[in-house]
Amino acid sequence: METNFFVKSHGLGNEYIVFDSENINFSLTSKSIQRICNVNFGIGSDGLLLKVPSNNADFGLQIYNPDGSEAEKSGNGLRIFCKFLYDYRFATSKVFTVETKGGLVNVEIVEEKNGKARVIKIDMGKAEFTSRLIPVLHSQEECIDEPLEIADKIYQINCVSMGNPHCVIVKEHLDITEIKKYGPLLENNPKFPNRINVQFARPINREEVEVLIWERGAGFTLASGSSSCAVAAVMVKRGFTGKNVTIKMPGGELKIEVDEQWHIRMTGEVRQIAEGVLSPELLEDFIH
Amino acid sequence: METNFFVKSHGLGNEYIVFDSENINFSLTSKSIQRICNVNFGIGSDGLLLKVPSNNADFGLQIYNPDGSEAEKSGNGLRIFCKFLYDYRFATSKVFTVETKGGLVNVEIVEEKNGKARVIKIDMGKAEFTSRLIPVLHSQEECIDEPLEIADKIYQINCVSMGNPHCVIVKEHLDITEIKKYGPLLENNPKFPNRINVQFARPINREEVEVLIWERGAGFTLASGSSSCAVAAVMVKRGFTGKNVTIKMPGGELKIEVDEQWHIRMTGEVRQIAEGVLSPELLEDFIH
Repeated sequence: METNFFVKSHGLGNEYIVFDSENINFSLTSKSIQRICNVNFGIGSDGLLLKVPSNNADFGLQIYNPDGSEAEKSGNGLRIFCKFLYDYRFATSKVFTVETKGGLVNVEIVEEKNGKARVIKIDMGKAEFTSRLIPVLHSQEECIDEPLEIADKIYQINCVSMGNPHCVIVKEHLDITEIKKYGPLLENNPKFPNRINVQFARPINREEVEVLIWERGAGFTLASGSSSCAVAAVMVKRGFTGKNVTIKMPGGELKIEVDEQWHIRMTGEVRQIAEGVLSPELLEDFIH
Repeated sequence: METNFFVKSHGLGNEYIVFDSENINFSLTSKSIQRICNVNFGIGSDGLLLKVPSNNADFGLQIYNPDGSEAEKSGNGLRIFCKFLYDYRFATSKVFTVETKGGLVNVEIVEEKNGKARVIKIDMGKAEFTSRLIPVLHSQEECIDEPLEIADKIYQINCVSMGNPHCVIVKEHLDITEIKKYGPLLENNPKFPNRINVQFARPINREEVEVLIWERGAGFTLASGSSSCAVAAVMVKRGFTGKNVTIKMPGGELKIEVDEQWHIRMTGEVRQIAEGVLSPELLEDFIH
C-alpha cells in the first residue's frame, strides 16, 4: 500500500474517504480534513474515516466531518469502513468488531462480489421509546400515535431515539412538498427540546415501508441509516410490519431487523468509487 | 498506467478529472460522465478531460461538462491537461500544441517543481472589441467607456469577446454585494443578445488589477480564465495598465499578457489533488 493511499466509497450516495493511520505521512487536522473533503481544492466527500489501533475491538475507527470535527457514529461510514477492512484483507473473517467514539459495534459481511464486500450488516444499538430519554416533552412514558398540531395540520406522531431523536409519522401518501414544508416546523417544535429528525412513512406491506426524511440540521435528505432504524422500530411497535423491514428511500434501500429487546441491525450495500493516492502537491500546505 | 487510471487536479479551485482515451475500458457517455462528476456517487468534479489522438497537433483534448455535454474550451481545463501530459511524460518538451473543439492552442510549461509542471502558459486567442461580434447592441463600432443605466445606477461599460461575451466595469471600490445585486441585471440586459459575463475591476497599479466576477449562467464565481483575459484587454485598451497584468480574484491570481494584435496569453498555477483508478464497482453499471 502506497503512502497516503485512500479509498472513496458510498452507501446510498453517502460517501467517505478511508485512510489507514499507519499509512499516512500527514496529520488529520481541521485544515487538512477540510481541504481533502472540499470538492474544488481536494477530493470531495461527506467525511473521512481513519483506521486506528484498538485495545477493545478488532479495529478502531475515527470518523471526521468535512469541517474537521469528530463524529460519534455514522451507519454508512461504518459500513464503508468495514468494506475497506475486508477488501484489503485487514479483516480475515466476515464477522468482526469495530470500536468507534460512539461505542463498540459488531459487524458482518453478508454478501461479497468478486472477492469484495458488497452487503454489510451492522449493529445500530437499541431503539429507546422513553419520552424523557428521546427527549420529547410528553406527559406519558412513551409518545406513540399522539396528535401534534403543526400550523394547519394535526399529525399523529411516534417518537423514538436511536442515539438521536426521531419523530415518525405514518402516511397513506408521501409528498415531498409536504415534508419540505412541515419538516422544519416539526423539527423546531418546542415539544422537542433537542429538535428532531422527521420521517414520513408509508407501509407498503408487512415487509416494506416507503420513507421520506427531513434530517435535523440538514433538511430533506435522500437516505439515512438512523432514520431507517427509527421507522422500522415504530412500524414493529405499531404492528404495521413484521420484525424484518425493508426501508425504501429516494436514495436507495436498507434492510432493518428489530429483535425482542428492540435491538436494531441494519443491512445495506456499499460500493467503492475509486482508490488512489493523495498527491504531494495537495499536502504541500500541510507537511513541510 | 493501470486501466481507468485518472488524475484530479485544480487551477484556482476549478478542478477536472483527466483520463487517457487509450487507457479506459468504458465509454464516456452522458450517464458515465454524470456519475463520475457527481460527488456522492462518483469522484466529484467540474468536468472531465480526455486525451485523444490528433492529426493537427501534438495532442488532442476533449472537454466534458458534468452534465455530459462537450465544452469548446476551458482555460483551467487546458492547463490541467497540459500538466497531466508533462507530469506523465506524454509531452517530452515544455512547449507543445493541443487541439480542442475550440481550435488549436499553443501551450508552455513555465515552471516546474520536483519534476512536475506547476505554472503553465496557454494561448487564449484574440480579444475582439467589435460590438456586433461580441455581441452588444450599440451604435458605434466598439462599446468602450459607454454609460448603461441599470436600475438606480449608471455603469460605464467596456465590452469585449474572448470567444464569449464580457462586460468590464472599472470601479474604485469592489463590493461583492453590489456585483451579486447588479450582476444578474447586467447579464440579462437587452443590450446583450447572448447575455454577458460581468467583471468589476479595480486597477491597483500598472501591473495589478483586483477583480470580482459574475459569470453568465453561473452567478458569482471565485475565478475565471476568460474573464481575466477580458479584464486585461480592457485595462490595456483604456490605458490603466501595461501589457502584462496580474488579475487578482478571490479564488487566486492569473497573469495575462496582451500583445500588439490583442492576442492574449494566460499563465497560472495548477496543482494535482490525487491520482487513482476508478473502481470496477463504479463501472458495473456502464460495462457489462
